[in-house]
Amino acid sequence: MAGFRTVKGFRDFFPEECAMRNYILDTWRRVARRYGFMEYEGPVLESTDLFRKKSGDEITGQLYCFQDKADREVSLRPEVTPSLARMVTARQRDFKKPIKWFQIGSCFRYEEPQEGRGREFIQFNADIIGDDSTGADAELVALAIDVTREFGIREGDFAVRLSNRTIWSDFLKDNGIDEKHTAVFLQIIDKIERARPEETSQKLEAIGLSLGVVRAFMDSTNEDHPAFAELRANLTARGLWQFVKIDASIVRGLAYYTSTVFEVFDLKHGLRAVAGGGRYDKLCALMTDGHVDLPSAGFAMGDVVLGILLKKTPGAQRGIMDHMAAAFGADVFVIVADEAQRGHALRAVQDLREAGVRVEYSFSATKMNKQMQAAENAKARCALIFGAEYPEVVVKNLHNRQQENIPAATLVAHVQHLLQQPAYGPLIAGGDEQKA
Amino acid sequence: MAGFRTVKGFRDFFPEECAMRNYILDTWRRVARRYGFMEYEGPVLESTDLFRKKSGDEITGQLYCFQDKADREVSLRPEVTPSLARMVTARQRDFKKPIKWFQIGSCFRYEEPQEGRGREFIQFNADIIGDDSTGADAELVALAIDVTREFGIREGDFAVRLSNRTIWSDFLKDNGIDEKHTAVFLQIIDKIERARPEETSQKLEAIGLSLGVVRAFMDSTNEDHPAFAELRANLTARGLWQFVKIDASIVRGLAYYTSTVFEVFDLKHGLRAVAGGGRYDKLCALMTDGHVDLPSAGFAMGDVVLGILLKKTPGAQRGIMDHMAAAFGADVFVIVADEAQRGHALRAVQDLREAGVRVEYSFSATKMNKQMQAAENAKARCALIFGAEYPEVVVKNLHNRQQENIPAATLVAHVQHLLQQPAYGPLIAGGDEQKA
Repeated sequence: MAGFRTVKGFRDFFPEECAMRNYILDTWRRVARRYGFMEYEGPVLESTDLFRKKSGDEITGQLYCFQDKADREVSLRPEVTPSLARMVTARQRDFKKPIKWFQIGSCFRYEEPQEGRGREFIQFNADIIGDDSTGADAELVALAIDVTREFGIREGDFAVRLSNRTIWSDFLKDNGIDEKHTAVFLQIIDKIERARPEETSQKLEAIGLSLGVVRAFMDSTNEDHPAFAELRANLTARGLWQFVKIDASIVRGLAYYTSTVFEVFDLKHGLRAVAGGGRYDKLCALMTDGHVDLPSAGFAMGDVVLGILLKKTPGAQRGIMDHMAAAFGADVFVIVADEAQRGHALRAVQDLREAGVRVEYSFSATKMNKQMQAAENAKARCALIFGAEYPEVVVKNLHNRQQENIPAATLVAHVQHLLQQPAYGPLIAGGDEQKA
Repeated sequence: MAGFRTVKGFRDFFPEECAMRNYILDTWRRVARRYGFMEYEGPVLESTDLFRKKSGDEITGQLYCFQDKADREVSLRPEVTPSLARMVTARQRDFKKPIKWFQIGSCFRYEEPQEGRGREFIQFNADIIGDDSTGADAELVALAIDVTREFGIREGDFAVRLSNRTIWSDFLKDNGIDEKHTAVFLQIIDKIERARPEETSQKLEAIGLSLGVVRAFMDSTNEDHPAFAELRANLTARGLWQFVKIDASIVRGLAYYTSTVFEVFDLKHGLRAVAGGGRYDKLCALMTDGHVDLPSAGFAMGDVVLGILLKKTPGAQRGIMDHMAAAFGADVFVIVADEAQRGHALRAVQDLREAGVRVEYSFSATKMNKQMQAAENAKARCALIFGAEYPEVVVKNLHNRQQENIPAATLVAHVQHLLQQPAYGPLIAGGDEQKA
């Protein structure tokens, strides 16, 4: 085989994987709409300038960037927030505040692929723009929790690790550390759980801090800290606070966060974060040289770690299976037992489809038993046999093997009625798509 | 304003445009499933080699190609068929034939943007692989017709222009023209309706033909030509032949088509083709150096020309409006009339959403009239007012302004019941766009 392959780190979605992807996308979309968020989308390709300096070193070092044929510096987007800020600031007068928007689409990063991280991944982004209240932060944390739970991931399976960057600004001030060290300090904290203690200690000492003092502060920071009081009251009222764990080591890698930050983690498998986000009040101003200043907060959830977690979580299987059953399979398989009847059979195929029924059939003359086998493969609920009986059609229930003859003239109404009957198996038609 | 912009030829989808995009995607998906096709997806980035020589000069000249950081030659895909052939030939034993798959995703081409052609567009692809019958061709033409009609584009609004490349091979043979001229000849035919006659004439004479002979053959080729007999019988049986016009000038630009070719055109606005496709029996063999030989046929429909056509077609407006009404708008707006009740209100927000109700509310203390205004903006069907009446909640119908007091304990069940009532308006509030 000549062997064309996917580009390193990119994915093929064969039908089974595509159905899984659609299940994730549909679930994100459904919960976001329930929260009153409206969907938008930006381009996957943006000027590289849009991401430089705004996203932080971790992301800009991994930019999938190149020059196009006109020497433009462009990048496959590593994240969507800069595009959102670009879009909102360009037309902010057209939208009532708070703007509550969500987005679903591919992002890219150029790094060595490893488990849970390819070079392409699909992100769900939800953002609230033009509202600086803690209530908006709480809404986003609640949405992150409810999206996760909608997949059948339950209490005990996951937690939201929550913090606030301002507690670290206050800590630095209280310890007499110059504000200019803030960015470096937050990078040290971001890596504190993974780095060797000696290394962390050395880095902290370089800016005048000891690991002991930092650790003691982290350990003493809990849900009683006043920075979390409002969020706690809000999420407690909703019955969601038990999903939240205060964790001062959470600061998020992105440069633009200003106060509330949070990540969604699984509790059983030690996977990477499933989602993360926070408040980024200065990004719009930064991107417009101060012309448009809109307080903002949001989070993103990726499909890759989530997909791994879904496979590992028993409670998540039912939702997946229900979706798969809806994504595949026909309602009806039309069988041409006598080629002289093919014209009538094709007319019935057309009429049934126009009535919304999912119909398959063999495209050319095929032996009867092969057509029956194809009907089984298609997971059809009934077979309609066009043969010597025409103008009657043999309707065969493929669950219980019972059959009856029905006049062709009333076939569509009859089949529509049959498909409502429990004896004809689960209702497959429909699925995730939106009925127009 | 600093003014970051989209990269030339790329699009932002603000909520209204995104809802329109989703309407198109959902409609494609629904009809394809009704036809028993399964969804797949390939990567948007592929090795440039995958597209070279396989797609034909028109597409390879417009490749959005570049070198990545490891000097790989990669391209943003200009079309999906080569990826499909790559995927299917890699795993063909895993799938029963015929393989009936569809795909929806972005494609890219590097050319000057103009009306109906940007550098990024979304394509719907439907293909049948492993079946060489005319019945499969007919199924694809029928699917193209039914997808178009599903948008409310009707008879008289559009036609399928149908031809077959073999009629031109036969024509060349009958006129004693060497087979080696076929590719050049088909390119001349592809452009014959747009090029200046003198130019066409000159090019034809270079390979030993006259424009007069070619024109006469084109004019004499109609639905009675034996090459179309089977397709005609099939589509006539379905009641779809009246949508088809035989047009020998249709050959399609792509190199890989072998016999049946067709395009969907609007009949009233002179737009570019809405969709196009045909049979490409040799592509799988070409891509695998002959190791996997699978007869194939398919077509693609883009979102851009279709979107223009939908805006211009009166019959298409109802479907768009119904979709917009479903995409925007809340069921319920929760109003906090007394901040002391915010905790109870948040609990109700959570409970209602868990019951599947679409709920919005103000995230922080807001004047009563502003909350009412926000409820109107959200096109909510009812307002739930948490104030002095608590533990009773005032439920106000925003269509007829009637209100009643309901105990908080039974609120969710009550609201679910109310939302089924005609007095509470359409299932999801209507209107054009919510700019929340």
